[in-house]
Amino acid sequence: MKQVGVVLSGCGVYDGAEIHEAVLTLLALDRAGARAVCFAPDEDQLHVINHLSGDFLPEKRNVLVESARIARGKIQPLSQADVSQLDALIVPGGFGVAKNLSSFAEEGAECFVNTDFAEITQKMHKAHKPIGFMCIAPALLPKIFGQQIRLTIGNDPDLAEVIDAMGGEPVTCPVGDIVVDIENKVVTTPAYMLAQSIGEAARGIDKLVSRVLDLTA
Amino acid sequence: MKQVGVVLSGCGVYDGAEIHEAVLTLLALDRAGARAVCFAPDEDQLHVINHLSGDFLPEKRNVLVESARIARGKIQPLSQADVSQLDALIVPGGFGVAKNLSSFAEEGAECFVNTDFAEITQKMHKAHKPIGFMCIAPALLPKIFGQQIRLTIGNDPDLAEVIDAMGGEPVTCPVGDIVVDIENKVVTTPAYMLAQSIGEAARGIDKLVSRVLDLTA
Repeated sequence: MKQVGVVLSGCGVYDGAEIHEAVLTLLALDRAGARAVCFAPDEDQLHVINHLSGDFLPEKRNVLVESARIARGKIQPLSQADVSQLDALIVPGGFGVAKNLSSFAEEGAECFVNTDFAEITQKMHKAHKPIGFMCIAPALLPKIFGQQIRLTIGNDPDLAEVIDAMGGEPVTCPVGDIVVDIENKVVTTPAYMLAQSIGEAARGIDKLVSRVLDLTA
Repeated sequence: MKQVGVVLSGCGVYDGAEIHEAVLTLLALDRAGARAVCFAPDEDQLHVINHLSGDFLPEKRNVLVESARIARGKIQPLSQADVSQLDALIVPGGFGVAKNLSSFAEEGAECFVNTDFAEITQKMHKAHKPIGFMCIAPALLPKIFGQQIRLTIGNDPDLAEVIDAMGGEPVTCPVGDIVVDIENKVVTTPAYMLAQSIGEAARGIDKLVSRVLDLTA
């Protein structure tokens, strides 16, 4: 059974992992007969956002603890991720990617990337194992790899400019589709960067999961 | 387009709505061309549970605000649910049903049910509109209706006894299937009362959503 690392960044689109994208990833992996192994950084979230009002809340929440809600308790600290145990790596989106896995939300092209997250992704790449990033997550790929990566974050021209400045190669892609950088075994899909409904997000995510699994040895 | 009320009870299996069940419900509705209208009570959760350790946390969280994470902000107070605007009602499970929509977790057969929740469910029933309850939620049906309802909560004999004492008619049902009380237009499925994987839960939930939509006028 293939083991696929799934990196979560909290629980909720505005301060954590996008819940639908995360659950759709787990569903697609299970239906394909693969085993999801969930990870998240054991660190405080940058923000806690009231998802009803959009207000900032004066609270502290931990990324790993909140991500455990999506994983039904079955999740490990990202620092413990072991490349030798994984056949592929998938990263759902949500602002958590830009707030908790990196500082992209606040610093754009000048952002830093969480060390454990950068390391596991780089090690997977060096081991020639496939990687699937969705929604806003692909924006971090050029920073993580320090090289040109063909990727999509949908069709946002301003964001494309930022990614271009970071050394990425942003490709316009419709919501239900994927972009594949075959040389680097990197698969990306816009998901809720473009999706107007959960069904639209699911189409692209199903394709991403399927292609990532195809690219495993 | 059919409008289906989805009642959430927080965000996380141990103190709120079961996230997978909620998202799978939204996915199945969208794929069937129906519109989900999410509701949750605007009240404090009974508990806040650390989903990694299982510990109780000394925090207050609001059911509506946390449910908004699953609904991506598009959710209304349960007190505002209007039967005339809905074609059907679906209730995902999770401990939130037994802790926030009722006191079933603490009081079993002697539990009370949240007034707004009992009222909207009763009104849907009186209007001959179909109702789908999953996981532990069906346990509340005899209490809400005050009459015999054919339902499933999987195959737990102790729980079946409690439901029997409440006036329900618990039916053993495998994870991927549904039980239909055709006279009352009530559809139930065990979901994570039995599911060992998200794919197993999805099979029953897909069937439940499909049958509930078939039962709309």
